[in-house]
Amino acid sequence: MTELLARRNAAFGAGAPLFYEHPLHLVRGEGVHLYDAEGRRYVDMYNNVPCVGHANPRVVEAMARQQATLNTHSRYLHEGAIAFAERLAALHGKQIESVILSCSGTEANEVALRMARFATGRRGILCTNATYHGNSELVGSLTRLGSQPSPNPSVRAFPFPEKYRPIAPNLNEAQLCEAYLAELGKAIEDLRRSGDGVAAMLICSIFANEGLPDVPAGFAARAAAMVREAGGLVIADEVQAGYARTGKWWGYEVTGFTPDIVVTGKPMGNGLPLAATAASRALVEGFRARTRYFNTFAASPLQAAVGMAVLDEIEQRDLRGNVTAVGAALKAGLQARRGASEAIGDVRGHGLFIGVELVRPADGSPDVELAKAVINRLKEKGFLTSNAGIFANVVKIRPPLPFGMAEAEAFLGAWDETIAELAA
Amino acid sequence: MTELLARRNAAFGAGAPLFYEHPLHLVRGEGVHLYDAEGRRYVDMYNNVPCVGHANPRVVEAMARQQATLNTHSRYLHEGAIAFAERLAALHGKQIESVILSCSGTEANEVALRMARFATGRRGILCTNATYHGNSELVGSLTRLGSQPSPNPSVRAFPFPEKYRPIAPNLNEAQLCEAYLAELGKAIEDLRRSGDGVAAMLICSIFANEGLPDVPAGFAARAAAMVREAGGLVIADEVQAGYARTGKWWGYEVTGFTPDIVVTGKPMGNGLPLAATAASRALVEGFRARTRYFNTFAASPLQAAVGMAVLDEIEQRDLRGNVTAVGAALKAGLQARRGASEAIGDVRGHGLFIGVELVRPADGSPDVELAKAVINRLKEKGFLTSNAGIFANVVKIRPPLPFGMAEAEAFLGAWDETIAELAA
Repeated sequence: MTELLARRNAAFGAGAPLFYEHPLHLVRGEGVHLYDAEGRRYVDMYNNVPCVGHANPRVVEAMARQQATLNTHSRYLHEGAIAFAERLAALHGKQIESVILSCSGTEANEVALRMARFATGRRGILCTNATYHGNSELVGSLTRLGSQPSPNPSVRAFPFPEKYRPIAPNLNEAQLCEAYLAELGKAIEDLRRSGDGVAAMLICSIFANEGLPDVPAGFAARAAAMVREAGGLVIADEVQAGYARTGKWWGYEVTGFTPDIVVTGKPMGNGLPLAATAASRALVEGFRARTRYFNTFAASPLQAAVGMAVLDEIEQRDLRGNVTAVGAALKAGLQARRGASEAIGDVRGHGLFIGVELVRPADGSPDVELAKAVINRLKEKGFLTSNAGIFANVVKIRPPLPFGMAEAEAFLGAWDETIAELAA
Repeated sequence: MTELLARRNAAFGAGAPLFYEHPLHLVRGEGVHLYDAEGRRYVDMYNNVPCVGHANPRVVEAMARQQATLNTHSRYLHEGAIAFAERLAALHGKQIESVILSCSGTEANEVALRMARFATGRRGILCTNATYHGNSELVGSLTRLGSQPSPNPSVRAFPFPEKYRPIAPNLNEAQLCEAYLAELGKAIEDLRRSGDGVAAMLICSIFANEGLPDVPAGFAARAAAMVREAGGLVIADEVQAGYARTGKWWGYEVTGFTPDIVVTGKPMGNGLPLAATAASRALVEGFRARTRYFNTFAASPLQAAVGMAVLDEIEQRDLRGNVTAVGAALKAGLQARRGASEAIGDVRGHGLFIGVELVRPADGSPDVELAKAVINRLKEKGFLTSNAGIFANVVKIRPPLPFGMAEAEAFLGAWDETIAELAA
């Protein structure tokens, strides 16, 4: 392990991110399980990329068959890529007609932001103050801004909406919604005054990196209306929220708004790099006319075959149904255990994406040390989670979609032990 | 075909790039051959991504085996990704020690440019006036600037070096080199005056998108020295030039300079999205410290297994040797045919990357119509090429690396017919 870590630090440079106090040396995965070099089995409760399960046989077969048949760039005609784009667009409402495929959420968000700028003739971008949408210079300029200005002068952050640590005390839900909308309004006004105007608001539909907050009812739809009123487009980042993660196809169905542009990524290829920007045909063609966009590896027969296999698995195994049922049971189980420790501040989430906020009982402040201790202890007990949220004090639970009731029950047992050991 | 085109225009939006007057509907590939929906076989003389051949069995096997075993993100320890990064770094000189893996040349060039900016504390970027390095906002701001300013105020373009249409008439090679270096010097001085200073020069090592020019001897090394003198770093974009394309591992060995940062992409995964930014450990760690860079799909066990299989194929089948031998024969064959038509202005290139410049005999001006006619006619004869260069009048010949003598001879026959038919 020490030698492998030293090799890693040299090969990737020290500072390449790594999970857990004692990193996990993985060698095999199957379904919702991962195995380390010593043969130990873990229940994977973190990974959304292998959404239909590690080493999913249908995906492996589709990948191998297509790579053994044909895999080229998209400047030849190929039926597979077209059919995949059609199927993807059809999973949204009528406003979504055409698709630009790419290789990562970063690339897909770049396309979305530039598409919105071309379509509106404006430059301003709105995002929350605790988000992450990707790692390029443009998309990275939206990362976790807090109260700091973005390095990009056309970006404005507004406070993400939440009910757990509300922006103002003693408000009812409707008032709290207005308070957050007022903050968005200030950001819009600031972009107007700067001369940039509003090109787009880019939000994760369920505010995943913000810590999966419970959002004041009606916020998302009202925010979208305000952005459109200001002449901007609404971009839903469904890289984490989409693909049945919440039990619905899309996170925007959960928070209740209608996007103009939808970005998808992580789970689309079960590990094959695959992402998409979907919008109206007019928006997509406007972007293509301005950029002559071409992406070497995207819209390939390989992406299409694997992307189709993933959708087949979700549909034919009714994974949305599984997510809804198991997710509800797991969330209810965790909520029922809130009384076990005053360190459990909140349990929230949608489908198989659940966050448990850990706090110091004395003052309710975020307890990142406890969150880290919990995820490391859960790992020792054979369950893989991570921590997230603006304070990194939220235990993030996000297993592959076939995660079952038996695993959920086993996890709740390990959870009880862990809380008893660390936070009783 | 008409129906498929209509579906494509709806699914991807009209304007998604497509090759040939009558687009090619492909269904299968094997080695250096591609097959269309009517069962017609073509010799592929364009595709560098499937560098070790279409449907390469070793790559298919490695891809399927790894996807069936384990494919996760890089925040767990995995020996494969580390070993691949080590092997990649070892293919360069001692100054290249560590690697950041990503999914596309665009992503890898983003990393390189931002790495250079962090390391130097300067913002200015130098590129040629006829280049393309990727499609993000930052990297795209370098695209084919000609004499126009970049939309990015920190980017300066200098005229790419060439001997065929020299920047000034009646100079010998040494004088021509000085003339181009003087243009680079002006761009450097302009960045200095702007206050940005020089962070980096980003060049394709063999100026592929510029049309594969023959470069005045000594230009690349002198240019690199000037950039370093100005405090900047030298980035070699080896996305097209590298991976044995020229018969050497790297294009910078051909043009004779030593880069600080090397970007690779297209051929690395034989169709799997895979790219890399390689540099000294200090440069890589400086970037990681500033960005906490993480790329969901990159440095995965899948990328590693496939990347290793591609390197194994290149080494064990001595594809560098094949490229050198067949490339030399093909280039010599084309050069020997220059006299067949006055429309053949120039034949140039390196290894299995050859450009034939087509011109109007009357005045030597670029003949893009003829180039298009030639590539469409060659396609009818069963040979796939494309056109490139700043005037799109260069027939671009760039087959998979296992391209053999027999195919080269067959192509020369088709070439003779085509020139006789279109440009005699």
